[in-house]
Amino acid sequence: MSEFIPVFAPLLDGNEKKYLEECIETGWLGSNGPFVKKLEQEFSVFCGQKFGSCVTNGSSALDVSLRAMKAVYKWEDNSEIIVPSFNIISSAQSCIYNKLKPVFVDAEDNTWNIDTNKIEEAVTNKTKAIIIVHIYGLPSNVKPVLEIAKKYNLKIIEDAAQAHGQTYYGNKCGSFGDIATFSFFTNKHIACGEGGIVLTSEENLYNKINYYKNLCFTKDKFVHNDLGWNLRMSNLQAAVAYAQFEKLDRTICIKQHIGNLYQKLLKNIPAHLSISQTEYAKNHYWIFGIVLNDDVKFNAKTAINKLAGENTETRPFFFPLHKQPVLKKLGILDNIKRPVSEKLYERGFYIPTGLNLTDEKIEYISKKIKRLF
Amino acid sequence: MSEFIPVFAPLLDGNEKKYLEECIETGWLGSNGPFVKKLEQEFSVFCGQKFGSCVTNGSSALDVSLRAMKAVYKWEDNSEIIVPSFNIISSAQSCIYNKLKPVFVDAEDNTWNIDTNKIEEAVTNKTKAIIIVHIYGLPSNVKPVLEIAKKYNLKIIEDAAQAHGQTYYGNKCGSFGDIATFSFFTNKHIACGEGGIVLTSEENLYNKINYYKNLCFTKDKFVHNDLGWNLRMSNLQAAVAYAQFEKLDRTICIKQHIGNLYQKLLKNIPAHLSISQTEYAKNHYWIFGIVLNDDVKFNAKTAINKLAGENTETRPFFFPLHKQPVLKKLGILDNIKRPVSEKLYERGFYIPTGLNLTDEKIEYISKKIKRLF
Repeated sequence: MSEFIPVFAPLLDGNEKKYLEECIETGWLGSNGPFVKKLEQEFSVFCGQKFGSCVTNGSSALDVSLRAMKAVYKWEDNSEIIVPSFNIISSAQSCIYNKLKPVFVDAEDNTWNIDTNKIEEAVTNKTKAIIIVHIYGLPSNVKPVLEIAKKYNLKIIEDAAQAHGQTYYGNKCGSFGDIATFSFFTNKHIACGEGGIVLTSEENLYNKINYYKNLCFTKDKFVHNDLGWNLRMSNLQAAVAYAQFEKLDRTICIKQHIGNLYQKLLKNIPAHLSISQTEYAKNHYWIFGIVLNDDVKFNAKTAINKLAGENTETRPFFFPLHKQPVLKKLGILDNIKRPVSEKLYERGFYIPTGLNLTDEKIEYISKKIKRLF
Repeated sequence: MSEFIPVFAPLLDGNEKKYLEECIETGWLGSNGPFVKKLEQEFSVFCGQKFGSCVTNGSSALDVSLRAMKAVYKWEDNSEIIVPSFNIISSAQSCIYNKLKPVFVDAEDNTWNIDTNKIEEAVTNKTKAIIIVHIYGLPSNVKPVLEIAKKYNLKIIEDAAQAHGQTYYGNKCGSFGDIATFSFFTNKHIACGEGGIVLTSEENLYNKINYYKNLCFTKDKFVHNDLGWNLRMSNLQAAVAYAQFEKLDRTICIKQHIGNLYQKLLKNIPAHLSISQTEYAKNHYWIFGIVLNDDVKFNAKTAINKLAGENTETRPFFFPLHKQPVLKKLGILDNIKRPVSEKLYERGFYIPTGLNLTDEKIEYISKKIKRLF
């Protein structure tokens, strides 16, 4: 197979084109457009939250969420936020930008989600919230997090950027957080290139989010009582995201088919694969991950390079947040080890799950992976 | 006329639809897409700069520009940046977010642009740069600014968000700054709902801008040496912006027609109108502004409210930055008066210049305005 196989590819065979045409024909380009409103209304209902507010992307969704919470709940500077150490930089960064301190909790060895047994020991009298991230399409174990949050009066930010339409014991991901955030980046289940949404059922939070994301404009146009950001999402982006939302079920089906076929083809390799299900959910395989066993003589980087030579794009797993050079530089790290996150980075990588992937390609990729060993 | 007349409306009769179809057919949604690249390459050449980097909007363009300059030129915290006091909040905000101090200079009475005679007295040994903004489609008087910048070794950020395709003595706006920024907001000459671009001819600045706007990702994916933002613009937005860029000349023609007709119809009202030309440029009328004479018994707010009752949308002029409550709260204001900016806000407003405006509507609006007096 000489054709390059990208790690992700969107499927744009629904109403994407039609809705974009509507934007042009009606002249609605901006963030007040009808697709933005429809997406906000319907996606929030779909996830069991009252309000939705579209923003520029998943990272800015976290920035504005923490800022709104800090303002509404009157958190002091340096309040602590519990964050999974196995995760992209955005959640830690949002804490820092909001003068909050991220406190990192290690991952579970099997699901790669936050280890809920280790959250309580990270709680101090400064802790105000827990950010849970449904890693790679499999939900975090939400129930114990809710219990800890209740016990210590903590808020929950649910980063569901990797889990659109996913459920936990039958309830939608995005329904559990005081705030839930999603990304609509090109590789997401709902993709529009760049985009995101914040969901909440708290009107106070919703109003603050809308205020901060729109440069803190007030009724008295151009008079500002606070500094905000422009985090508005255009109607063009919402048009595509809405078309993608309409066929989310099918997207999940395709992803599950891809994941199940990889499970079958790769079951005997000396590695831990993305698990197919837990007690509370079936995997949606936003990505399909492979963590090399300890006794395998090469690491993830070697595997990635070898597969690149076979025209197969892969990606490394997240670099653990508690090891990030930038956080060291900012002096906000401790010396606690998070061995699972560290191992996942050393030994883990993920393989193509683009929505246009044929069975033939999956078989080709699997064959190349098996040859690594 | 019972139909509501909005203050702005885009004209989407070019290749907008075709290029959006191309995005869907090729699957290119994200910020690496071909329209982003084409726009960056061709718009920078058009403006006489070497590099272009698309971002989420005009405000974030300023944020990332000042951050890049601060890093490349090693400016200390609290360095001073000269900013026009008659202006939207974004430029002041970008200074503050980058721990720089905005120092406000009043506007000229006739052009509403920064008063270049007052810049030099605002320069201190902490001054590092001047932000010039081409207000409402008429260029700032760039030459004296360049001279002051040279004399005191200051950098120039040219905010050309209101002046796409405009020229100053025949040279393109956007060509003068060490960095130039543009917005592609719905009401701009090049409109895609939300979007923006940063231009520069300095490779160091360009690299830093690309680094900060993409979460400070490095070659070692997911390892971060700095905290950035996600300010990436999607290929969808770029597709529309590129189609708009192709017909910028016509857009400017339409705007000038609208402006010239208003000039003719409103020439006798007791107000100062957007001037049609200066020694160095013809007005592009991004907006058409009206500043009520001192002896008119009502102010801009009254005019705005009365015209709203006639189904005619208008907007107030900028609220002067040196009076912003948020800046007072942050303790960064002085007690210097900027009487021109203050008067412009009290007495000024702008009237519809949507690209779909018919002569009939312009006549209707002008009649309603004349009746105010």
